[in-house]
Amino acid sequence: MASQTEAITTSRKQSTQSGETTGHASNQSAPSAHPATGKRRSKYRHVAAYHSQARHSSLSRESEETISFLGFRNLMVLVLVAMNLRLIIENFMKYGVLICIKCHDYRKQDLVLGSILFALVPCHLFVAYLVELSAAAAAKQTVGRQKKTAEEKEHDQQRFRSDWRYTAFLHTVNATLCLAVTSFVVYFYIHHPGIGTLCQLHAIIVWLKNCSYAFTNRDLRLAYLNPSAESGLPEIYASCPYPQNITLNNLGYFWMAPTLVYQPVYPRSEGIRWPFVFKRLAEFFGLSVFIWLLSAQYAAPVLRNSIEKIAIMDIASILERVMKLSTISLIIWLAGFFALFQALLNALAEVMRFGDREFYTDWWNSSSLGVYWRSWNRPVYLFMKRHVFSPLVGRGWSPLAASGMVFFLSAVLHEMLVGIPTHNFIGNPYPPYSRLSLANSFIGVAFFGMMFQLPLIILTVPLEKKRDPLGKTIGNCIFWVSFCLVGQPLGALLYFFAWQAKYGSVSRMRT
Amino acid sequence: MASQTEAITTSRKQSTQSGETTGHASNQSAPSAHPATGKRRSKYRHVAAYHSQARHSSLSRESEETISFLGFRNLMVLVLVAMNLRLIIENFMKYGVLICIKCHDYRKQDLVLGSILFALVPCHLFVAYLVELSAAAAAKQTVGRQKKTAEEKEHDQQRFRSDWRYTAFLHTVNATLCLAVTSFVVYFYIHHPGIGTLCQLHAIIVWLKNCSYAFTNRDLRLAYLNPSAESGLPEIYASCPYPQNITLNNLGYFWMAPTLVYQPVYPRSEGIRWPFVFKRLAEFFGLSVFIWLLSAQYAAPVLRNSIEKIAIMDIASILERVMKLSTISLIIWLAGFFALFQALLNALAEVMRFGDREFYTDWWNSSSLGVYWRSWNRPVYLFMKRHVFSPLVGRGWSPLAASGMVFFLSAVLHEMLVGIPTHNFIGNPYPPYSRLSLANSFIGVAFFGMMFQLPLIILTVPLEKKRDPLGKTIGNCIFWVSFCLVGQPLGALLYFFAWQAKYGSVSRMRT
Repeated sequence: MASQTEAITTSRKQSTQSGETTGHASNQSAPSAHPATGKRRSKYRHVAAYHSQARHSSLSRESEETISFLGFRNLMVLVLVAMNLRLIIENFMKYGVLICIKCHDYRKQDLVLGSILFALVPCHLFVAYLVELSAAAAAKQTVGRQKKTAEEKEHDQQRFRSDWRYTAFLHTVNATLCLAVTSFVVYFYIHHPGIGTLCQLHAIIVWLKNCSYAFTNRDLRLAYLNPSAESGLPEIYASCPYPQNITLNNLGYFWMAPTLVYQPVYPRSEGIRWPFVFKRLAEFFGLSVFIWLLSAQYAAPVLRNSIEKIAIMDIASILERVMKLSTISLIIWLAGFFALFQALLNALAEVMRFGDREFYTDWWNSSSLGVYWRSWNRPVYLFMKRHVFSPLVGRGWSPLAASGMVFFLSAVLHEMLVGIPTHNFIGNPYPPYSRLSLANSFIGVAFFGMMFQLPLIILTVPLEKKRDPLGKTIGNCIFWVSFCLVGQPLGALLYFFAWQAKYGSVSRMRT
Repeated sequence: MASQTEAITTSRKQSTQSGETTGHASNQSAPSAHPATGKRRSKYRHVAAYHSQARHSSLSRESEETISFLGFRNLMVLVLVAMNLRLIIENFMKYGVLICIKCHDYRKQDLVLGSILFALVPCHLFVAYLVELSAAAAAKQTVGRQKKTAEEKEHDQQRFRSDWRYTAFLHTVNATLCLAVTSFVVYFYIHHPGIGTLCQLHAIIVWLKNCSYAFTNRDLRLAYLNPSAESGLPEIYASCPYPQNITLNNLGYFWMAPTLVYQPVYPRSEGIRWPFVFKRLAEFFGLSVFIWLLSAQYAAPVLRNSIEKIAIMDIASILERVMKLSTISLIIWLAGFFALFQALLNALAEVMRFGDREFYTDWWNSSSLGVYWRSWNRPVYLFMKRHVFSPLVGRGWSPLAASGMVFFLSAVLHEMLVGIPTHNFIGNPYPPYSRLSLANSFIGVAFFGMMFQLPLIILTVPLEKKRDPLGKTIGNCIFWVSFCLVGQPLGALLYFFAWQAKYGSVSRMRT
């Protein structure tokens, strides 16, 4: 009896087994009539052999077919949307509408001082221009003499060096003044952290442009004084050779162009497409409003609710708060990135007919933190590479030491950008408040946040170099977690807490 | 002066523009020395032309390069993990540990009745065997006579028809009794919904197997009585032709095999790999515990909290509850699917050496609801196709009408599976409770939930046929939202509410 339910192990065996058919099988049509099809169409509907061959479940490891999981990707997007929609409803039921245009107050002093700073900072570029103009005049004089004996050459070299010392001194004083005055005013006289951050950002950008202008022109001048094949300058500069580029027009273009790296000549686009400019500006303003709404309605309550948790150092609650904040801060971060680097810089580049729009590369695929820092903010990265990393390596520093220097400089600038406007810079001169001792323990978060990246970058270098997708995915996940899911919300929490501990909320500040 | 900062619009123009170089440019090395590289290595580090060509931002529409967004996929996974980790912490802070093995109580009567039902139900298969045995004996007698005049053939046909009426009557009584008795006992005497659902599931499976056994053997008998080329049976059946398959062994195999479609012969695997069986069983039990933990710790509080919101019909709150529930119910659903269809059925198939393991196909990629229903539960789909859809189409029904019939039958079975164990079947005979009038408005949710799919399927058929990925993605999203993000949690909420309205919580039921 058991033989009647006997196996047809594989479809290949079927042909041999059908030969064994005996008895009543001879009444049926010969099985070999349709050898190609396992199932044959019968007029009897209830007998079709739906289980006609051995198959594996598609999720089993034995399954040969590669299955697509695209549907699960769609599901993830939908679940994310649903979860956040739910949080929006929950937030609305808890707090109602928190957005209020008139509630936010600025001190008039902040606005006035901010405007003055915005007008004064670019003047330092004009001073740098004057310094370069006099240096160029001296260089022209040297070249003009055209007496090329060895002795005179040596004399020229010496003269260039003493000239450079003088020029460098003037540039340093000029640039440092720009940064120092702004930082001083923002730290002591501008209360509102938003206005303060804008002023600091502007001053740092101009400072970087100032540095790039001085360094680049120094090397151009050197190449001008010592023409030789090995000093070959980039082809693109040929249309505007050295002393010709020291003009107000040229500097003015560099001032407005979306780059921190000075070049006498840039690749330019054909013309200005105004619809493109307006679209990018619309994106920028739309996203700015979006970020403001998110901050006011979602980030602010989470930050406020977490104050007490931080004060009593309840680790589970801080973790919960950081996680709740991480989604919001991540969305704000992504929107801010797009608004600044895609929308605003592209609009500016279009207006300036600036050709090289590579303000970022695909940093979201970074397989390590190092790749991320090289790709998300190309203007600063290019500055650091050209004026810090490359010269240091040229002087014999190891690449690691040069990277460390870049990160140190970057950490200082980040701390200036965040610590000074929130009045949380190291060496806070304010008199001690009730919770200031705790608040003071958080100063320098941006600085140490940046410096802490260095060991993490060194640790994730092996992942960056891996060719297999798994290593890259792991590196990418480490990047997202350390940077966007933990680093940023934690930093925001700590700065907000330090601020609240000193001043209370922004809206209550007129006391 | 403006000409000094003049554009090099594209890198192609560079070569022509470099020819225009005049003045001090002649002091530099000829630009044509390295025509291939835009940047040439200079001993001066600060002059490198980092902006040497016009490029688009990679997120701009003009950008020619196709960029990968794999990093954002990783980010989505991480955000989902982070958001759910946060909910776990929040849940723990709110409720503590809710899991409690001893708290859940069963009535002894439920267990006794459930066991009796589990033992009795398969007996109906034995009755079906006896019915088929007598029918086969009669058929053998007919064939045995071997007198093939036209008159005798006509007589044989008539006799077959009257025999089939008699056989069909017996099968119907037998199968209906199986389902009716179980439903009656579960509805009136088994209080616990879990035990009730298991009993109902078992009875429905046996009922379906019963039907398939009767229908298939009827057609096999018909083919046996009228041997002809056009009645060609599947090749795979050749090793066990008609009357030989009516044995207890053969039926016993069908009873235990993971299929609802009766075939005299199935494709079989070579042997039993016991490690495979134990791995699958471990998966099944592990996932069962996981589902139980999720239900007790996360689903139960959400369901409890939503009772009042449903009672007062607060739409915003119900929406918020459904969304909160949707993630949990989705995870439970996916875990349950894997536990049943991948782990349990594969373990069973391995033990039974059942070869065709295609218990599902890639339903997660379904581009419409129709595709989903054809792919997620192959055993039921194959039953419906072979014993309902195909015969109805063979009788001249339109495919749409036949599909409608399949969905109607499926809806009835779903309602039996959910409505009867939760005592929410249509025509509830319980005396009216305080909130019963409201609870009664929810009965038949499973039935109408299924029937409502039909128009949705018809609406999404165009998406299913689309070739472009966008149409498929939209269809896939409609499927996920309608089915997993809204349909299931809403259904669970309504059944839970109806249950609570009648009985209060499961733990309070011994009153």
